[in-house]
Amino acid sequence: MTRIAVVAGDGIGPEVVGQARKVIDAVLPGVTATEYDLGAARYHRTGEVLPDSVLDELAGHDAILLGAVGDPTVPPGVLERGLLLKLRFAFDQYVNLRPARLWPGVPGPLAAVKPGEIDLVVVREGTEGLYAGAGGSLHRDTPAEVATEESLNTRHGVERVIRDAFARAGRRERRKVTLVHKTNVLTHAGSLWARAFEAVAAEHPDVTTEYQHVDAAAMFLVTQPQRYDVVVTDNLFGDILTDIAAAVTGGIGLAASGCINPEGRYPSMFEPVHGSAPDIAGRGVADPVAAVLSAALLLDQLGHADAAARVTAAVASELAGRTPGAPLRTEEVGDRLAGYAVG
Amino acid sequence: MTRIAVVAGDGIGPEVVGQARKVIDAVLPGVTATEYDLGAARYHRTGEVLPDSVLDELAGHDAILLGAVGDPTVPPGVLERGLLLKLRFAFDQYVNLRPARLWPGVPGPLAAVKPGEIDLVVVREGTEGLYAGAGGSLHRDTPAEVATEESLNTRHGVERVIRDAFARAGRRERRKVTLVHKTNVLTHAGSLWARAFEAVAAEHPDVTTEYQHVDAAAMFLVTQPQRYDVVVTDNLFGDILTDIAAAVTGGIGLAASGCINPEGRYPSMFEPVHGSAPDIAGRGVADPVAAVLSAALLLDQLGHADAAARVTAAVASELAGRTPGAPLRTEEVGDRLAGYAVG
Ligand SMILES: CC(C)[C@H](C(=O)O)[C@@H](O)C(=O)O
Ligand SMILES: CC(C)[C@H](C(=O)O)[C@@H](O)C(=O)O
Repeated sequence: MTRIAVVAGDGIGPEVVGQARKVIDAVLPGVTATEYDLGAARYHRTGEVLPDSVLDELAGHDAILLGAVGDPTVPPGVLERGLLLKLRFAFDQYVNLRPARLWPGVPGPLAAVKPGEIDLVVVREGTEGLYAGAGGSLHRDTPAEVATEESLNTRHGVERVIRDAFARAGRRERRKVTLVHKTNVLTHAGSLWARAFEAVAAEHPDVTTEYQHVDAAAMFLVTQPQRYDVVVTDNLFGDILTDIAAAVTGGIGLAASGCINPEGRYPSMFEPVHGSAPDIAGRGVADPVAAVLSAALLLDQLGHADAAARVTAAVASELAGRTPGAPLRTEEVGDRLAGYAVG
Repeated sequence: MTRIAVVAGDGIGPEVVGQARKVIDAVLPGVTATEYDLGAARYHRTGEVLPDSVLDELAGHDAILLGAVGDPTVPPGVLERGLLLKLRFAFDQYVNLRPARLWPGVPGPLAAVKPGEIDLVVVREGTEGLYAGAGGSLHRDTPAEVATEESLNTRHGVERVIRDAFARAGRRERRKVTLVHKTNVLTHAGSLWARAFEAVAAEHPDVTTEYQHVDAAAMFLVTQPQRYDVVVTDNLFGDILTDIAAAVTGGIGLAASGCINPEGRYPSMFEPVHGSAPDIAGRGVADPVAAVLSAALLLDQLGHADAAARVTAAVASELAGRTPGAPLRTEEVGDRLAGYAVG
């Protein structure tokens, strides 16, 4: 039996996660879901972010479905470092998977790109780089202050995420992997990434490869997003590039993500890329599509490829039927998606 | 008398720099220009990148005009670290200035943005951060390899570039400065940037301020570029964001940049953002507009605001008269620009 942990979180989190659960229940009856109260609300109430006991309990699940955490009154870094990044690191979620598609029915911002033409997935490293938390400062609040942030990269960490990217590319039609880094400036980490990439590429002669500097990739994601299939990159570059990919495919309102431990030794976590959107919370107007697409990634990761495909197809039907700009009701979208998915 | 050093460089560098010089001569007769042979060609011929004697000679000029350096056969990092970054650091060019405008006549990629609506300038820090060259590796080429890159940030370095951004904003119509960083993950450097920003902002009550995480800014540069006036950010974020800004305003073919030492203790350097474009080099078809706009930044920096304004107006006339997609001749564009500028 499949056991998932649900962290609905703050703001619109509970609303959109409710629809994602509805759709999961429709395509895979019998999943057990346990709710965990984490996020800004709990932090304000109790001062706790992620107690060790909760971390232990989460570890006992097959996957985690997360809505959104945060609100503007929590100091920067508290929930990010204490909850989201803590989970990514504790559960060794080294593959941060972020697909981006320009769905028929969704008006993208780019004049020259037609629906269907963008279909890429960014495989972002999730446990190393500048996210390692290796930094510090001296002489704080004096003119002599110095602050450092260190990017830590290991062959182990880099190679495994590159392997995942090639495996995914091998299952896709175009079979192309683009490595994005900044080898001309970050020469040490860049060289490690480039050498690991070459080594893995040599084992996959059927996969086309290319390399781009991160600044060029940021530009090409705007001018030629069609050129990308699988993009593999480091933690911070992936953070930035996936928001550009979301922007050119209609905004983070539709973007799904998975923080994956591919071996399944720890639970993977799935969440919409959007935040808690306090401005529209509680009104039942948040678009649950990103949460539902995240549920599809969850199902796929747990081996239910068919159920995942049905959810993805349901989203395609939903989006194709939308009138751009028309208001939507969260519950109604969820009902329609569940209907399409079993239909 | 104004003395500039010219590094035409490789590929299309000499072609576009030729037009920039033509335009400078037209608006400010009597500038002395000394050519320096640096770049991929010299590196291949002599193994030299930037001899100390040349660095000393460059230091004796009022400014440097650079075309483009590099070709695909030079190993990554050699010219970047050895020439471009060496100059930025040696000449303490801490303001990396990158304006982005959607000019009337230029078809931008964004369906919803009209010419004239984008008019922003990124003030990118140029001498710190991940560009400091502080990194290394251990156990190279073994499974135990680890590679680091360190971002170094000082109150000194951060505050001075923020001051420059506020000064520029004070001279612009909208008077708005957006700080871009990643304070929720890079908490040490982020906190330094945020505190320095607040301190400088307090001295400028007439300037509106906002803060955005780099991933959000990357997205908003695509979905709402109109919202930005002056953006101030760190070295690497600035590298990425300026390429997005270039992309949404018609591509790096039009993007100018200045690496500026505002106090004038060392020469500032001005260069188009585009590269040496070996594929079209020598054919006389490269667009010199980015080089000419860089020359305008040079003139402005040297106190010739009028001449700079005339060059910028000339570019506006040139672009407004273009038919999108029509072929152009480098020389002819240069002649037209010189004509408009004195006209
Ligand atoms: C909230 C933040 C820590 C996070 C990140 O930087 O990874 C977010 O931007 C994301 O992309 O998931
Ligand atoms: C060539 C490279 C070192 C440089 C940078 O990263 O700064 C370039 O991308 C730029 O933006 O000027």
